[in-house]
Amino acid sequence: MSEKHAIGIDLGATNFRIGVVDDEGTILKKHMEKVGNDRSPDDIALLLGLYVDELIREFPSIIGVGVGVPGIVEVDEGILYQSPHYPEWNNINFGEIFTRKFKMPVLLDNDANMVALGETFSGAGQNLSNFILLTLGTGIGGGVIYNRKLMHGDHGFAGEFGHITIDVEGHDCNCGSRGCLEMFCSSVGLSHLVKISNHEKKGDFLNIVSGDIKCINPAMLFDFAKDKNEFAIHIWKEFGTYLGVGIASLVNAFGIFNIVIGGGISRAWDYFIDHANAEITKKTYRETAKMISIHRSELVNDAGIIGAGRSVLL
Amino acid sequence: MSEKHAIGIDLGATNFRIGVVDDEGTILKKHMEKVGNDRSPDDIALLLGLYVDELIREFPSIIGVGVGVPGIVEVDEGILYQSPHYPEWNNINFGEIFTRKFKMPVLLDNDANMVALGETFSGAGQNLSNFILLTLGTGIGGGVIYNRKLMHGDHGFAGEFGHITIDVEGHDCNCGSRGCLEMFCSSVGLSHLVKISNHEKKGDFLNIVSGDIKCINPAMLFDFAKDKNEFAIHIWKEFGTYLGVGIASLVNAFGIFNIVIGGGISRAWDYFIDHANAEITKKTYRETAKMISIHRSELVNDAGIIGAGRSVLL
Repeated sequence: MSEKHAIGIDLGATNFRIGVVDDEGTILKKHMEKVGNDRSPDDIALLLGLYVDELIREFPSIIGVGVGVPGIVEVDEGILYQSPHYPEWNNINFGEIFTRKFKMPVLLDNDANMVALGETFSGAGQNLSNFILLTLGTGIGGGVIYNRKLMHGDHGFAGEFGHITIDVEGHDCNCGSRGCLEMFCSSVGLSHLVKISNHEKKGDFLNIVSGDIKCINPAMLFDFAKDKNEFAIHIWKEFGTYLGVGIASLVNAFGIFNIVIGGGISRAWDYFIDHANAEITKKTYRETAKMISIHRSELVNDAGIIGAGRSVLL
Repeated sequence: MSEKHAIGIDLGATNFRIGVVDDEGTILKKHMEKVGNDRSPDDIALLLGLYVDELIREFPSIIGVGVGVPGIVEVDEGILYQSPHYPEWNNINFGEIFTRKFKMPVLLDNDANMVALGETFSGAGQNLSNFILLTLGTGIGGGVIYNRKLMHGDHGFAGEFGHITIDVEGHDCNCGSRGCLEMFCSSVGLSHLVKISNHEKKGDFLNIVSGDIKCINPAMLFDFAKDKNEFAIHIWKEFGTYLGVGIASLVNAFGIFNIVIGGGISRAWDYFIDHANAEITKKTYRETAKMISIHRSELVNDAGIIGAGRSVLL
């Protein structure tokens, strides 16, 4: 039997990742590159097409391309309805655009959904029938695996966990609502937590980092926490507590007890996870709390490539 | 072909309802009775058994009994884990208790799940592949129909919508958490909304109703609203707004756009639904908002009987 391969593409808010995957989820070759959010859909197709063509020449065994895109995707039609990170993209038929450009069958889904599939195929979700996936990055991505399948909801809108309300009186969110989970538990959320904090060491911290809250990013807060900076450690505690509030709501809604957390911010795991778990225990039924497990993504940055690529090989 | 019938039982927090159902969801006979929440499981089985025996004598065509119970149910094992309204009941094997008492096959599920099935079989959900059900009563019940099937989650814990957090700084809830949706959008919630309101007509209202907030119930607030009492109308507006916050979170999480609302409080529909819809529009993506429909339960108090009974006949 000749071996078949597929290309998996993870198109994020700031980078895209592309790789060749086999049917066991092994990545044979991969590449990562920055991408601005001012590109047109055709521009993106052109850019990705260069890499796709090159990979197809190198691996004639490639039979299709899976693509995860940041936004709401109608999978059957291959349409991206709306993307928080590419505000100009509305109702774009990427399925058609990519198929034409790549000259290959294309499978399109939301980026977090592809990550969830990756974790199902060969990561933290391998032994879980049901789990909720959260990717913590620029925003919050979400996916639900139920009976080992993705739950898409109506027209692909499932898993917008960043925009569940946790603070009805909270600050305005970009989505038009207020007090959304994403205002606490994402890159944007971390800046917001610094901004609203009245911790006594906040002034010292801002002095060290030049005083501009807009320059604060997760990596910086992670590095300061590693250096035992009291304020940074406090912000991660707040982050974990709010994350626990959000996860408890999701557990109460879905009744799903396994949560997998990925995304760049999960690097700071050791600084927030205990606080998240403590809050989850407070906010769920005692019978439930005992059964909840929070898992760290095993594939980290490769999950999207593996999920997108292996989906094509199913 | 000889016709088959089943008994459907809806065991609520304050009443139980029992009826005989045919395979088209028609109720041939029904009965409702008050039930205290101080009864032991065996007491309940004894009480229900009297009616079951009588109905079986009258309808020898009965082949089984479906029972909806208020609490978290492991369906496969027939176990009630925990019930907010019967705090003494923990890990009760009602499947076994009822089967022994009724001498009939018994199908046990959460009460709101049975209501959701009732609406699927012959109510507001007949033409919907996916919908979220909320019952607004003493507490908030919830069910999810996905691909025309109940979503149970792990061990039956799905649909505890009353305990999603909408106000992280909110008041303590009986569940151990705080700021839960149920603290705003249930009988308990209505009293709470009156208590925290600083509306200028609150004093006048409390004078009329003898000043005791604990005596305020949904029926009273409904009657006052019908009589154009400004404060009662205001409370229903608040109720609707918070309900909208909760529904928007559920829509963002599940990506399910049809919501069916039942339970006793849905009688006040005309006083809260516009406010709920306005809030949902604010709190969901513009592409989503257009597609969301809130439906009123069509079967109202019969939904639980029909769902429980017809499940047995499938």
